[in-house]
Amino acid sequence: MKNIIGNNLTLTLFGESHGKAIGGVLDGFPAGVTIDEALIEAMMSKRRAAGTISTGRQEADIPEFLSGIKNGVSEGTPIAFIIANKSQRSNDYNALTGIARPGHADYTGHVHYLGFEDASGGGHFSGRLTAVMVAAGALCMCMLRERGISIGTHIASLHGILDRKWNEDDLDHEIALINERKFAVLDETKEESMIAEINAARMELDSVGGILETAIVHLPAGLGDPEFDSLESQLAHAMFSIPAVKGIQFGKGFGFADLKGSEANDPFEMKDGKVTTVTNNNGGINGGITNGMPVLFSTVIKPTPSIAQKQKTVSFVEGKNVEVEIHGRHDPAIIHRARVVQDAMSAIVIADALITRYGQIDWREGE
Amino acid sequence: MKNIIGNNLTLTLFGESHGKAIGGVLDGFPAGVTIDEALIEAMMSKRRAAGTISTGRQEADIPEFLSGIKNGVSEGTPIAFIIANKSQRSNDYNALTGIARPGHADYTGHVHYLGFEDASGGGHFSGRLTAVMVAAGALCMCMLRERGISIGTHIASLHGILDRKWNEDDLDHEIALINERKFAVLDETKEESMIAEINAARMELDSVGGILETAIVHLPAGLGDPEFDSLESQLAHAMFSIPAVKGIQFGKGFGFADLKGSEANDPFEMKDGKVTTVTNNNGGINGGITNGMPVLFSTVIKPTPSIAQKQKTVSFVEGKNVEVEIHGRHDPAIIHRARVVQDAMSAIVIADALITRYGQIDWREGE
Amino acid sequence: MKNIIGNNLTLTLFGESHGKAIGGVLDGFPAGVTIDEALIEAMMSKRRAAGTISTGRQEADIPEFLSGIKNGVSEGTPIAFIIANKSQRSNDYNALTGIARPGHADYTGHVHYLGFEDASGGGHFSGRLTAVMVAAGALCMCMLRERGISIGTHIASLHGILDRKWNEDDLDHEIALINERKFAVLDETKEESMIAEINAARMELDSVGGILETAIVHLPAGLGDPEFDSLESQLAHAMFSIPAVKGIQFGKGFGFADLKGSEANDPFEMKDGKVTTVTNNNGGINGGITNGMPVLFSTVIKPTPSIAQKQKTVSFVEGKNVEVEIHGRHDPAIIHRARVVQDAMSAIVIADALITRYGQIDWREGE
Amino acid sequence: MKNIIGNNLTLTLFGESHGKAIGGVLDGFPAGVTIDEALIEAMMSKRRAAGTISTGRQEADIPEFLSGIKNGVSEGTPIAFIIANKSQRSNDYNALTGIARPGHADYTGHVHYLGFEDASGGGHFSGRLTAVMVAAGALCMCMLRERGISIGTHIASLHGILDRKWNEDDLDHEIALINERKFAVLDETKEESMIAEINAARMELDSVGGILETAIVHLPAGLGDPEFDSLESQLAHAMFSIPAVKGIQFGKGFGFADLKGSEANDPFEMKDGKVTTVTNNNGGINGGITNGMPVLFSTVIKPTPSIAQKQKTVSFVEGKNVEVEIHGRHDPAIIHRARVVQDAMSAIVIADALITRYGQIDWREGE
Repeated sequence: MKNIIGNNLTLTLFGESHGKAIGGVLDGFPAGVTIDEALIEAMMSKRRAAGTISTGRQEADIPEFLSGIKNGVSEGTPIAFIIANKSQRSNDYNALTGIARPGHADYTGHVHYLGFEDASGGGHFSGRLTAVMVAAGALCMCMLRERGISIGTHIASLHGILDRKWNEDDLDHEIALINERKFAVLDETKEESMIAEINAARMELDSVGGILETAIVHLPAGLGDPEFDSLESQLAHAMFSIPAVKGIQFGKGFGFADLKGSEANDPFEMKDGKVTTVTNNNGGINGGITNGMPVLFSTVIKPTPSIAQKQKTVSFVEGKNVEVEIHGRHDPAIIHRARVVQDAMSAIVIADALITRYGQIDWREGE
Repeated sequence: MKNIIGNNLTLTLFGESHGKAIGGVLDGFPAGVTIDEALIEAMMSKRRAAGTISTGRQEADIPEFLSGIKNGVSEGTPIAFIIANKSQRSNDYNALTGIARPGHADYTGHVHYLGFEDASGGGHFSGRLTAVMVAAGALCMCMLRERGISIGTHIASLHGILDRKWNEDDLDHEIALINERKFAVLDETKEESMIAEINAARMELDSVGGILETAIVHLPAGLGDPEFDSLESQLAHAMFSIPAVKGIQFGKGFGFADLKGSEANDPFEMKDGKVTTVTNNNGGINGGITNGMPVLFSTVIKPTPSIAQKQKTVSFVEGKNVEVEIHGRHDPAIIHRARVVQDAMSAIVIADALITRYGQIDWREGE
Repeated sequence: MKNIIGNNLTLTLFGESHGKAIGGVLDGFPAGVTIDEALIEAMMSKRRAAGTISTGRQEADIPEFLSGIKNGVSEGTPIAFIIANKSQRSNDYNALTGIARPGHADYTGHVHYLGFEDASGGGHFSGRLTAVMVAAGALCMCMLRERGISIGTHIASLHGILDRKWNEDDLDHEIALINERKFAVLDETKEESMIAEINAARMELDSVGGILETAIVHLPAGLGDPEFDSLESQLAHAMFSIPAVKGIQFGKGFGFADLKGSEANDPFEMKDGKVTTVTNNNGGINGGITNGMPVLFSTVIKPTPSIAQKQKTVSFVEGKNVEVEIHGRHDPAIIHRARVVQDAMSAIVIADALITRYGQIDWREGE
Repeated sequence: MKNIIGNNLTLTLFGESHGKAIGGVLDGFPAGVTIDEALIEAMMSKRRAAGTISTGRQEADIPEFLSGIKNGVSEGTPIAFIIANKSQRSNDYNALTGIARPGHADYTGHVHYLGFEDASGGGHFSGRLTAVMVAAGALCMCMLRERGISIGTHIASLHGILDRKWNEDDLDHEIALINERKFAVLDETKEESMIAEINAARMELDSVGGILETAIVHLPAGLGDPEFDSLESQLAHAMFSIPAVKGIQFGKGFGFADLKGSEANDPFEMKDGKVTTVTNNNGGINGGITNGMPVLFSTVIKPTPSIAQKQKTVSFVEGKNVEVEIHGRHDPAIIHRARVVQDAMSAIVIADALITRYGQIDWREGE
């Protein structure tokens, strides 16, 4: 449904990068959840530009809550929030009207919206809209915390530079660790080389991408639905709404192509009276439904399409080939910011799945 | 919504592998589409077991249409169909009651359905349910054909054996070619080695998986919706409802992690008065919306979890560790059958997107 | 969504009156509900033709369950069922092709389905499709019974002949009473005069309608949702899918137009430690949400449009005025059969609301 | 879906009467519609308090558009708007915490939201939320105008005082007339007596209700969907989201109970080469689908539950019987304001139905 996602907990998203405000409405959020503004601010700040490796645009991006929260507790009614667009330098983009920036949605947006779209700064397709996802996801994270579920994402690879793998025996600690870090690598020695890579790309007027790995722990078994609302379907649906995501895989993912069944299957075993699996190749999901093990998935983030190099393209208004140089703000990488967007969209999907299974009241305790 | 997929064109799916029948209801299918039974049979037969490399279960799997079609033309009302389960040898599975086959949904289904599920042969999670997807997708393929859209899928890799790549300059021909073939490789010399690999796995009481690549051509630009109903979101949602799919990627997919923006961006150019792209790294989709180039994506199919080797696992009913040997029918690979399921689910998503954009009447012509 | 209704519990309906079969799929129905075939048969039989006052078409209308039920208990997977069309005398209708029977959907169906509809016997618009609603509603009634909720409907008026009102102090008994009766009047002395009225209409080649009143008891307070998914919105949505329903009102309904606020408001009072209301003018719903009192509503059933008199109308195929005489089977009234359709659609809405609020597990106990 | 309505055009609504702001997001609104601010203001002003007969609360209620509109034309992206709550005198209501005002949603909201609701001034259930419906409906009215569809509503009855009926032979003129009037009666001589009735109710610390009749003209035939998304189902669903609506009827509505089929059926006839009906008892809808005649329906608006008289009720917090006197602002009637809310919700439903049938592009011309 276009700008609405979710079954029983829905996020409706709106805004253009250079309009008055962007924002969202979270409907179906349960009553009685303590809203932790520090948690929201912590997540919002991870999405914002960080130091020299990101865009010049520095907006505080504080969501202003308009409804649904009273004295720091959710009321059960829709939570609406807006994030003002303070810095609206759309002039940077005006020169580009009618020109399709390669890798961007300028042309497809133009066709889709019949020429009536506001393309300044990407308009409705701008990465800025991910601030809405983060704000909504942060609210859901407040909810998940009350059930003991936590979520974390690290940069598994950046233009070929690899972080170490999750230590799957201690994901609680790993997630806590990564959520403390501004630059999401498990192996801190990789931060410097990744940042150097980003800065090198900047110097070349180019950009880089990479792979984000997410872990979700303490999910009850039985979550998700069969067939078309498998948890994999729901998570994938949500992740592909993050601009720049071009792939997703669960557990061993594309690595399954080279395994045999005997290597791929996760043997079950009883552990402390609980059903667990010895390995977790399937990323915590069998038949679309959680088995109680950590849910593990990764996505690929393509290199930012906004690069400062001169590029060949077309003017779709004039119907002719042109060259384009994109001025204005550029991120040579967004993967280090996208990590929290992935956390946020994950939180929204999991919160929705909890309510779908356990209802509006019993989601904290239901098994 | 559990067993329903789609916005304006919806498939409702039902059935258990060892019940009376499986089937589906396709609602919102437009009036006036010629239903080509030969096309339906051709797709159904691709999904069926083929020769020595597949399961002993050989059912004709002819969908019986109950409504919505008159004299070979769709009426616009819901098209319901059933596929009888003729061969219900559930005894093979009875011995396993309460035992979690590794890699299967026995345990998660048990938790999800509170112990009331019919687990015989996988029950509602059985791969047999994909026959419903194929029948529904074949109907959608009849519709897409009237607009000149075609879809094809090949086995890009099978346990490390690679097919050649699509020749992207001649996809019309490539798709026609692959749709003629029972074993979906572009390079026919690979058929033998892949089948040998499958048979080797069978001899080892093991199984193999691989990667399926799909191409969709002659889509209009502008299809799909921004943000949460991006065409990537919709296709991914649909593909993860195919059992064994554990990953999906569009265009260069996970390969983007190693590219720079200048390599990843697809320059636009005018060609015969039409906007096209020089390369198609993004798989025909920018910002979630088609740009008129072929839509290209691939999925990974994990090795079939049903293997005949003795495996460690648990009895979740008795709460103890056990060993299991799975008797009955086994496919050492299902990827060669899954290719048409992927075609079918793609057809359903594209048909829905056409109706969403162009309405119930104008979907053949709308631009 | 066309032929699908519900949020978390959905009914997908299909079929044409003269096709092979009609049927439905109930998805989201919880696991572990005992399916009482006698209850289903009792409801189906109320919908069937009764004695001399109804159509000549006498079909057993036994739903054949294809999935989702094992050993008389729901599995949690979709419950699909079909009802065969044994008596397909579509010749009766063939003469009418292209002619708009007044009060029927022949013309609107023709426009809507672009001329591809099967109009025989009303096709997809036929009252016969209500058999699917009753079968699905009977399943939901099995579920509601496990929570102690009951539902009953009586003929409050038939062409001006009034039944007595519900005794609201003893609705448990009243509902039990009406559900025992084949002809749904509380005051048994009215049965004869109503049947006489129906037979008089038949003799005049005419038809009659009336008003159906429904009561639902033992609902928990708090059911339904604010604003757009008020329980009134959901019930009204469902009731208008019953052919011939042209109005619905809750509690005093249109009578509110002549009341003052002081007369209309229902004072609350504590009774046995529970919040109740002294009167129930609002029909058990405040702000779209149940208050724990019985939900009371009524609908108007227009006189059956199929009458045997010669009528003026048009041939929309030939674009000219014509006269039509409708041969074949006619019901001079359907209100005495529609009562159980109203029970059934009510049961579907309430079951869905329970699952939405209490989830897939806790709906029997949740408060 | 709680606070979201619509299939392809959706309104998401949010806000509490005494929070920062109320508002909405209209998603799926087509690109290229001229937004007429004068029309929006005209509709908003009809909803506002008028003269001595309405509440003391006088807010300008200007919707501030945050997205989706550029230079007065819709962009196709979500249109979000907020309406600030300037006058937040919630003290008036504080004394009532935990007390169930008869006829209000205080108690049901308390149960539904588990005690976390903000009940001040009705909170999320407040009639103030209808300002959001009117703003969204006014946008849809801009869209409908481009197709020549118009909508009007008059007060058919107010506490027994009747307006004259629509002149169905000249509905274009009648609708234009009623939309010019601040007090929506066709027979202007009734305005004075109705206002006198409202003022009399005020003097008695009481309130009155009535019946609203709506006409929608120039709809194409074929609009709406069969079975569960009949246009009647959709309109009824929408109308019951207006607080105080307790009934709806189409065409002759409850009057059908006293008619015979021969009186109720609308004979078709050709007129100027077009299929029309001689009478319009069915209110322009057959089988849930428009037949091209005006859609006619009426609703009942119960008397405002907020009355200044002392009333018996309960404190649901203390679990005891109490008496309540409601101070603060009271409307002795809201029907004269609700008329434009009914127009607005009608416009939303019709706009959605147009897009569902004709798609995102062709809705202006599709037939």
